[in-house]
Amino acid sequence: MRIFIAGLDGYLGWSLAQHLTLRGHEIGGADAFFRRKWVDEMGSWSATPIATMGDRLNAFEHRFGRPLRFWEADLRQYDFVERMFSEFQPDAIVHLGECPSAPYSMIDVNHAVEVQTNNVTSTLNFLFAIRNICPDAHLVKLGTMGEYGTPGVDIPEGFFEIEFRGRRAKLPFPRLAGSWYHWSKVHGSNNVMFACKIYNLRATDVMQGVVFGTRIDAMGDDEKLLTRVDFDQAFGTAVNRFCCQAVIGHPLTPYGKGQQRRGFLPLRDSMQCLTLALENPPRKGEYRVFNQFEEVYGITELAVKVKRVAATLGLNVEVRNMENPRDEMEEHYYRPDHQNLFDLGYKPTHDVEAEMGIMLGDLIKHRTRIEAKREALIPDVHWNGRRGKVHFLHPPVPSVQAPRSAPSPANQPLPSPFPAGV
Amino acid sequence: MRIFIAGLDGYLGWSLAQHLTLRGHEIGGADAFFRRKWVDEMGSWSATPIATMGDRLNAFEHRFGRPLRFWEADLRQYDFVERMFSEFQPDAIVHLGECPSAPYSMIDVNHAVEVQTNNVTSTLNFLFAIRNICPDAHLVKLGTMGEYGTPGVDIPEGFFEIEFRGRRAKLPFPRLAGSWYHWSKVHGSNNVMFACKIYNLRATDVMQGVVFGTRIDAMGDDEKLLTRVDFDQAFGTAVNRFCCQAVIGHPLTPYGKGQQRRGFLPLRDSMQCLTLALENPPRKGEYRVFNQFEEVYGITELAVKVKRVAATLGLNVEVRNMENPRDEMEEHYYRPDHQNLFDLGYKPTHDVEAEMGIMLGDLIKHRTRIEAKREALIPDVHWNGRRGKVHFLHPPVPSVQAPRSAPSPANQPLPSPFPAGV
Repeated sequence: MRIFIAGLDGYLGWSLAQHLTLRGHEIGGADAFFRRKWVDEMGSWSATPIATMGDRLNAFEHRFGRPLRFWEADLRQYDFVERMFSEFQPDAIVHLGECPSAPYSMIDVNHAVEVQTNNVTSTLNFLFAIRNICPDAHLVKLGTMGEYGTPGVDIPEGFFEIEFRGRRAKLPFPRLAGSWYHWSKVHGSNNVMFACKIYNLRATDVMQGVVFGTRIDAMGDDEKLLTRVDFDQAFGTAVNRFCCQAVIGHPLTPYGKGQQRRGFLPLRDSMQCLTLALENPPRKGEYRVFNQFEEVYGITELAVKVKRVAATLGLNVEVRNMENPRDEMEEHYYRPDHQNLFDLGYKPTHDVEAEMGIMLGDLIKHRTRIEAKREALIPDVHWNGRRGKVHFLHPPVPSVQAPRSAPSPANQPLPSPFPAGV
Repeated sequence: MRIFIAGLDGYLGWSLAQHLTLRGHEIGGADAFFRRKWVDEMGSWSATPIATMGDRLNAFEHRFGRPLRFWEADLRQYDFVERMFSEFQPDAIVHLGECPSAPYSMIDVNHAVEVQTNNVTSTLNFLFAIRNICPDAHLVKLGTMGEYGTPGVDIPEGFFEIEFRGRRAKLPFPRLAGSWYHWSKVHGSNNVMFACKIYNLRATDVMQGVVFGTRIDAMGDDEKLLTRVDFDQAFGTAVNRFCCQAVIGHPLTPYGKGQQRRGFLPLRDSMQCLTLALENPPRKGEYRVFNQFEEVYGITELAVKVKRVAATLGLNVEVRNMENPRDEMEEHYYRPDHQNLFDLGYKPTHDVEAEMGIMLGDLIKHRTRIEAKREALIPDVHWNGRRGKVHFLHPPVPSVQAPRSAPSPANQPLPSPFPAGV
């Protein structure tokens, strides 16, 4: 298949290009390097050093024996999107070219507007360019599990059947997103659903959990093929941040009670799942939603796992909860479905701690890069609009030491290292 | 109260400024005159001649004895919004400053992007400006009943309680909008709901039905105080279009089967309802949704009413259904709630035919203006992206002639003048 990746320079995009190339697909893609700019704005950089796109493309061709087609393009420019599709004639488009940060969107009105208009416009441009240029192509749109929020009931995959006042209907499951960014993804999902209906397009909307990891097998040993790993408050995600904290001896910092529960998956599982979606396209006119995660974990539970794995590498760090800059429920019911990908053959990694071990090994080599941007680890963007560094909730305490041979059951949160009600 | 009206030059905005001034409120507002530009782009103009804003403001001051505060402002410019709020210090903001046209948004990618980014950006700007400048102010955001679409079950007012797999939750009612424009309103509703939660704002989100009418009592006899009345395919709404068609002897043109059912309300009822919302604000942090319409009618049912009333004025026109340029259900279940406004004291006009008589009387004076833009009456924007004038579905037929003394029950569709299955 010819697969076009929007956001080729990003965490997932750069990895996916390699993974799909190894599977024999022909890959092209675009990026405007906004992610590099945004992370720089947050006072940070990738923990792994990121080559220029020129060097990346050379390394890619050297390893895979064929060039990677690349356009430097602002996806908000419709004419450019249409021209790329005309030249490349994709069978599928993976839209990873959005701003993916909740805290970044919450900074102020300019950031909220930038994130929402950037994400809405690029998605609309893709929908129209598919309609006009390659109407049979399959759009794989990256959404987020965060579109659902924490509704207090089970979360189906996109749709549910309801009975309301004696009549039945299958309707989109209500969304309760938790940031301007997450709402931008809801706006995008709604737009994609509508386009499938009126333009007879086909799309998979991926409600992705929180991804963690530094590499996939396709990358081999060439450092220039590694993907970026962010650890700042805005573009770093929970486990990646914890691992970066661990290698510089910084406490691991769940927010608030740390009992928030989310779906997580290793980077290699994200690649596997996106590939399954691509290689099993929906029929024309179909809009389908996949919830994509390996398993649900509590945030502190994951921090404790990182702590445990780090200890085996001689890295001794504490878990210390911090003031929560977000407005979110810290204890809540959470049970999302994720059957659709299993039905297509998804084989979860499950060994999360092994993955954490690989990550820590990669990151230790770059500890001075993390150390240099240590300030970026501590959030200062609050959901109520305030700006100010958060503080630790408690003085250091001896944390719960779980024996390595008896990990907790995957889907149960560990007890918080701090008393309830904190 | 000091009430700021965004979209002061528009159909609702210009009317509301007068209505609220008569009730003793102090009104300011802004407009960038986009509506005039958009209607011109559709090859049309208002059936009623619209004075320049300078003349409108003079006529306003002459009639009401006080000036109307006006800013010419692009609401996508945040700094300008903040400056207006700082100067005016509103107690309430009515956001009527969005692009309100489904067909306009469906023309092509540029129009889809313009409508969605314009509407999303202006709403975000208002939310942040309220938070930063006047956090106690009440935002009345104009949404549309079209956000819900036709889901096949009863439509509550914004939220509903569900039981899902044995657990209960109160959640936003799923939206199934039918155009890029309607989705832009869903995006806005979601953003307003979220802002109320995180910034502790108060807002009323008005899911308004289709408004019709040429005047309200506050306008008196000064033609310069009349509001605009559009009849083109994009900015004209059903009853207004039928009345404009009637005065030039053009057939009245329901789309498709004409059995589509929607909530409708006269312009004077829209004013009454918006005033009730403004004068009964929600508490801080509350996001409430009002479904705002007088009654549900079928489209052909309304066309037949217009035909009947027109006949009493010596205007004899047929009802002739046209090819439907939209992608919508033409026969469907439709039962939306609208209790919230009744609870606040809404007294519906109910006499729809009397309202149509007033409209026809106003419009007859301007028949040459409608005649001059006759082409604009026939749609050419199709939901599937095609552009081409629609045709009549049938040769002229003798239409159903309902006796004037026995109008059909308000909430029942009349039989279609054409066989079912058309």
